Formats: sequence, structure tokens, C-alpha cells
Amino acid sequence: MSKSPSNELQSFISVAKDHPFPIQNLPYGVFQAKRAPFPQAHIGVAIGDFVLDLTILASLGFFPSLQGVFDQACLNPLMATTPKQWQQVRQKISALLASTNPELRDNPSLRQKVLLPHCEVTMLLPVKIADYTDFYSSREHAVNVGTMFRDKDNPLLPNWLHLPVGYHGRASSVVVSGTPIHRPRGQILPNPPEPQPILAPSRRLDFEVELAGFIGHGNPLGTALTIDDAEAAVFGMVLLNDWSARDIQQWEYVPLGPFLSKSFATTISPWVVTMEALAPFMVEGPSQDPEPLAYLRPKIRRKSHFNIELTVKILSKLGLDPAIICRTNSKNLYWSLAQQIAHHTIAGCNLQSGDLLASGTISGKDPGSYGSLLELSWGGKNPIKINTQEERKFLEDGDRIILEGYCQAPNYRIGFGTAEGLILPSS
Amino acid sequence: MSKSPSNELQSFISVAKDHPFPIQNLPYGVFQAKRAPFPQAHIGVAIGDFVLDLTILASLGFFPSLQGVFDQACLNPLMATTPKQWQQVRQKISALLASTNPELRDNPSLRQKVLLPHCEVTMLLPVKIADYTDFYSSREHAVNVGTMFRDKDNPLLPNWLHLPVGYHGRASSVVVSGTPIHRPRGQILPNPPEPQPILAPSRRLDFEVELAGFIGHGNPLGTALTIDDAEAAVFGMVLLNDWSARDIQQWEYVPLGPFLSKSFATTISPWVVTMEALAPFMVEGPSQDPEPLAYLRPKIRRKSHFNIELTVKILSKLGLDPAIICRTNSKNLYWSLAQQIAHHTIAGCNLQSGDLLASGTISGKDPGSYGSLLELSWGGKNPIKINTQEERKFLEDGDRIILEGYCQAPNYRIGFGTAEGLILPSS
Repeated sequence: MSKSPSNELQSFISVAKDHPFPIQNLPYGVFQAKRAPFPQAHIGVAIGDFVLDLTILASLGFFPSLQGVFDQACLNPLMATTPKQWQQVRQKISALLASTNPELRDNPSLRQKVLLPHCEVTMLLPVKIADYTDFYSSREHAVNVGTMFRDKDNPLLPNWLHLPVGYHGRASSVVVSGTPIHRPRGQILPNPPEPQPILAPSRRLDFEVELAGFIGHGNPLGTALTIDDAEAAVFGMVLLNDWSARDIQQWEYVPLGPFLSKSFATTISPWVVTMEALAPFMVEGPSQDPEPLAYLRPKIRRKSHFNIELTVKILSKLGLDPAIICRTNSKNLYWSLAQQIAHHTIAGCNLQSGDLLASGTISGKDPGSYGSLLELSWGGKNPIKINTQEERKFLEDGDRIILEGYCQAPNYRIGFGTAEGLILPSS
Repeated sequence: MSKSPSNELQSFISVAKDHPFPIQNLPYGVFQAKRAPFPQAHIGVAIGDFVLDLTILASLGFFPSLQGVFDQACLNPLMATTPKQWQQVRQKISALLASTNPELRDNPSLRQKVLLPHCEVTMLLPVKIADYTDFYSSREHAVNVGTMFRDKDNPLLPNWLHLPVGYHGRASSVVVSGTPIHRPRGQILPNPPEPQPILAPSRRLDFEVELAGFIGHGNPLGTALTIDDAEAAVFGMVLLNDWSARDIQQWEYVPLGPFLSKSFATTISPWVVTMEALAPFMVEGPSQDPEPLAYLRPKIRRKSHFNIELTVKILSKLGLDPAIICRTNSKNLYWSLAQQIAHHTIAGCNLQSGDLLASGTISGKDPGSYGSLLELSWGGKNPIKINTQEERKFLEDGDRIILEGYCQAPNYRIGFGTAEGLILPSS
């Protein structure tokens, strides 16, 4: 991981101090112009209220060593270049946008070609996702769920403190922020635990606030990534909402895990924030007791967690402003991304460029930091207020859930933008 | 589903009566010539001891309406054409190989270009797999596992008779027959149930004999495939070995299901047998009690199961001949492929071209038909004899597992070929 750009670095594009996309960030995304001139998807970088069009810059010869990387509708070719090339592209873009560089700043016709206001583009899914894995790495979340559904005196299962529990998720139904979500229907028990299911729209639809990493470089089948090499495999991070139908999940999940209760949709934020931008915001994670096995213990660096402030907002059909219902932080996670990757590959499973690895619901200690309605309403027993007129146990049709996240430096923020979705009635 | 080719149809290439690849079969695969003239992968059809090279035929203008379909190293473009086109290609190939047609038969220079002996090619993974789902659809298998690990008086979990239980598997580690399998290492309990794991090579490595379907045409996100439309979504079938590390599985699988215990490798047979070739071998499945919910009940056709004879052979380092350790049949399955697809999509999950859906271990009633060593050795308690000198509880390094399968007609067989893998020591 290279040194972070200076706190003082500025772009000729003015960016407010609390804006998610200063020159220190430069996240990558895939977008389409809402109107002409081009109908196909392009690759861009967010800078303030603008998108810098890398596809056009590449066609003008700005990235001569990266032929073919910016002319596809996904970041996968860029992710598959070397980490050194990731760094070079980022340096080139940073230099081009710097306040001191006249190349783009003083060329109005070029500026007009390659800088589009955010409001004039539609963001698309940034990556053609290969495999998707979801972990379960927040101790507070696992304890909350275990307390509700298993044994309040012994809420963690015996394996939980020894390995980052995870499962394979569904890649095809990962969608970009803004995609509406149809309430899923499925088998639910109208009179639990009476085992007589009906087919009905889920009555306990929920969100889960998560952070997720995209693999840039994986490992061949039959080999493992060591924990000290694990982070170098990651290209960047996004916010992720693991929509969950609790009633479908409760009936289907034994013994092979969640299936239809999750696979109907997963929302990610459109901008992939690079590991380089996040590097200054790495912090130590919680101490781990019992000490994990050697392959899960870093030999070199201790700063394995991301200090990212996360909020969840809800806006109902009746609401005027989104209400914050959760404030949490990814440094709350027990298992780190590096530990997740080392574990994922220890038996020889190959990670590939384009794989998505999510953290699991990120809950903190205090009830206001619980990362799902299941926990916030304690299984539906304690509805939460979402505006002057309404409360919620679970999501209702017309509810919009908005995830946001950022890292705070003295003079700037590294923001993720939003991952949002509107609940539509069952189709 | 169209009518099956006549029982009397013959090719000018002679094919023995018990050969897996008569003209009635015509399965698709991807291969590479072991020597020159071409280094890249081609698409082919198996006919007797030969492979018919469709990539070369296409370049010679034999498939004018399918530009670009046969010049990639996978079947995905063919699978993404319409079912009507699948049928047309198959008819064209069948006509070209028929004993009565001189076009290829009497053209030695064309024959030499497009017909390669099996022994001169290496088979590759036939499909770029999108998502992989594994079901758990054999009642006998679920009862055996439930009897061993849960409650012998009540071995099925309450949901099992109401829905085809399944989980998301790992797509990246699906490999073609012949790929060696490194014994996975992972967290296991040396003194179960004492929850003190060590990192070690699996001591309870196993196979599972399964049948799997490749989706040709799926459904958009937020919609469902009805059970009567489900089979038309399937392009063809392969044999599948869901290698499983039982000791890793036992420790990791609660509460989110199997993860590293399965994701180290899954082997499939190289030839994709089309639904059209299998159509004459559809049979009724077992009666289902309780009656499933309406979305799992076919309105039109009752023949939902495949009558495919399956065998599992093992050959150890010391063995001279492979020994048959399991004879089973996919008609033993409780849940049909159509039910699996209808269930998979009922909550809105989108299936895509290239998805792989596996049946789960196919066990029958009689102990000789159990589809895994876990069941055959009853959890390691009753080792089985594999040759005059050796017995097995679980797999040892140097063991080779060979799955075979075929449908039997009076005058021919529709064979799947083999799905085999050799166990190498932990890497």
C-alpha cells in the first residue's frame, strides 16, 4: 500500500469539505450519459459533482499502456491489470485533476468532452461479478441473532470465534444502487413453529448494512493467499445492502444456509473506492480471544480494519426527510477482510478477479448501531419510530433504504456515496 | 421437447451398441487437439470414438445462421441461442452424420479435417459457469445424513418435504473431468466435539454422485419460471462430483451452510447431453406426500425425472481395476429438476445462461446405491472393501473416483462419459 495523497492536495474542480469525492478519493464507476452524445456505457472517476470520462480520455491517448481497458462496460479489465498499474492510473488521474496542472484545467473544449455533471449520468453496476461471498463477521450482530433465535446465555456457536463464518451468495442478483427491489414471495409459516407453509409475500423484509471488497487478483485453484498477502488482492470497496426476508430465511435455512431469503436482490453502491484511498484510514481491529490459528494471524501489519462511518436512512412514502435509523462503523467488525480472504482460500478455493466479498451485517454495541431491522426492532417486538407518524418492525412497500459511508480526514472525506433501494410490492 | 430420434437411426461412423455416444446422443463439448494443427479450443460433438469439430465446420460455412457461436472456447454462445436454434443445429449435425448422407461420409478430405479421434483431444470445461447451485433432493440421502447426525427417529428436517432445499455453491472451482484434486486442508476438530480446532489436511474426504443441468435461458430479476416452463430453460445435463471434506463441513456449517468443505473443487463430465437426447428417458418421479404447494405441482406433464443409470467406481494406487462401489439412478430423486427451477426463481432470483444446478447426492434405498462414502461406510463405522487388499472409510491420496451414467434404449445408449478425479496429497 503506497503513501496516501497529501491532505493538502486540491483539484481545480471545487469540492466542498464534506463532499464524498475529493481528489484524494477518485473512486471508479461505470455510467451512461442520460442524453446523447453516447449511448454505450463508459468508465469514469468521481470528482466533486462531476464524472471524469476515462473511456474518452483513453480514446484520446491518455492511457497508452492500457489498450482495451476502458472500452468495456465494466471495471473488470482495469481490475485485472497489475497493482502497479492501478497505482499508475490513479497517479495520472490525480495529476490531471490537480489544481496546479493546466492540461485539463485550461482546456475548455477537453473539459467539456470529459467532465459530466453527476446529474447527467446514470450509474450502472461497476463490475461483472464472478462469485459473491457473504461473511458474518460482526460479533455484535452474531450475538444479537444468537440471543434472539438460539440461547441468550450462549449466543455464539462454537465455531464463531475460531473462523470467519461465511457462505456463498448469489452473484446474478447483485444490483446497483437505485434499482427498485420487488418484495420477494416464498414459503413462510403463517403459524410458526407449525410446519405448514404457505406461498406469500415476505412479511419480515429487512436490510443489512455491509461493506464489501472486490478482488482484483486472486489465487490459482489448490493454493492459498496468506493473510499478509491478502489485502493486496483487493481492488476496492463498496457499500452493500444484503436484503433479507427473515420469514423465508427462518423456514428454509436449515441445514444448508440462506438461499431464496437473500438471492432475490443485493444492492451495492456504484463507486468502487480504491484500497489506496482507504489506506490512511486503516486501524487496528478488536483483540481476538481465543487467539486464532496461525493462518489467521498477521505477521506484518496490525492495522487490518477500516475506520468507515456508516449510516442507514429510511424514507417512507409518507416521510418528508430520510431518518437515520443506524449509525455504525466498519471498525466494529471482529474478523478483518484479510482474515476473510486467508480463510476463504485456505482449503484451496480460487478467488478470481471480479469476486465480491461482503462483511456481513455491521452492528456495534449500542442499539442505535444495530445494522438490521431484525436487531433494531428486536425481532419485531420493539418497533422503531421513523418519523412523526410511523414506526417500523420490518420494511413496508414504498420504503426507501439508503446506506452511506465515509472516512473522515481533517480536511476531506473519502465517501462511498449511497447504496439505496426502494421496496416495490410483490410482483 | 421434440420427438426423439428414431431408434433405428445410424451413423456412417460405426458405434457399438453399448457405446455412450451414438448418433441419438450428440453431446456438446469443448476440446483442444493434443498436437497441431490448432492450439486454441474448439467446440465439438461426440460421435462414437470421434469428435466432430463444429468450429471448423462453422468456418467452412455449415452454420450460416450462427455467426460467432462456434468460435469461442465455451458453449455459452450456443446455449444463449433460442431452443429452436438448439434443435436446428442438432438436426443439421444428425443429418451430416447419418449413414444415408454422402456429404461428409464420402468426402475423405473433409472427414480428415473435422473428425478427430477422442484419444487425440483433451477435453476442457465446456461452459463458463455463471452461478452454481447445489440442491439436496434425494430423500434417501437426506434421511441417511439425518439419521447419522441428528435424530434417527426423525431424520428429515421439517422443511425437507415442503421444498427442494438448496444452497449457493462456488462456481470458480468447478473443474472438468481429469483435473487432479488436492486434498483440502482446513479447520477440523481432532477431538470432537471438543471445540479446539487445528489446521490440517481433511481426514474425511468424500465424493458425492450428482446430476446437474446447465441453464440455457433464464428469467429476469424479479420474475419466476413456472414449473411447466422450467425444463425448457435447460440446455443439457452433465455428471457432477461434489467433493466434500466431512470434517471441515461438520465444524464450519452452522449456521450458514457448507463453505470451504465444498468450494475446493467440484468435478463435472465434459460432454453436455442435450435435453432432446434425454427426452425419451423421462419417467414419473416418486409420489410426494405431503402434496407440495401449487407452484411446485406441474399442471401439464408428469414425467419429470430422468431414468439415468449411475455408477461410481474407485481405483486406488494398489488397485488393478476400478471397483464399482455405488449403483444408483437419478429417478430415485424426490424433487425434480423442474421443481428445483420453479423453487429457485419463486422469490424473484434470476437464473442466467451458464448457470449450473446440481441435484445433490443421489442415493437409493439399498445400501449399494448410497451416493457417498459417508453413507457407504456409515460415517466411517463400516469400511467398505474396494479390492482384495484394501478397504475405505473415506478417500485416500492416490484414489481415483470415476462417475459414469447412461440411459438405456433397446438399441442404443445415451451416455454421459465419465467425471473422474484423482486425489493428490494436500499441497
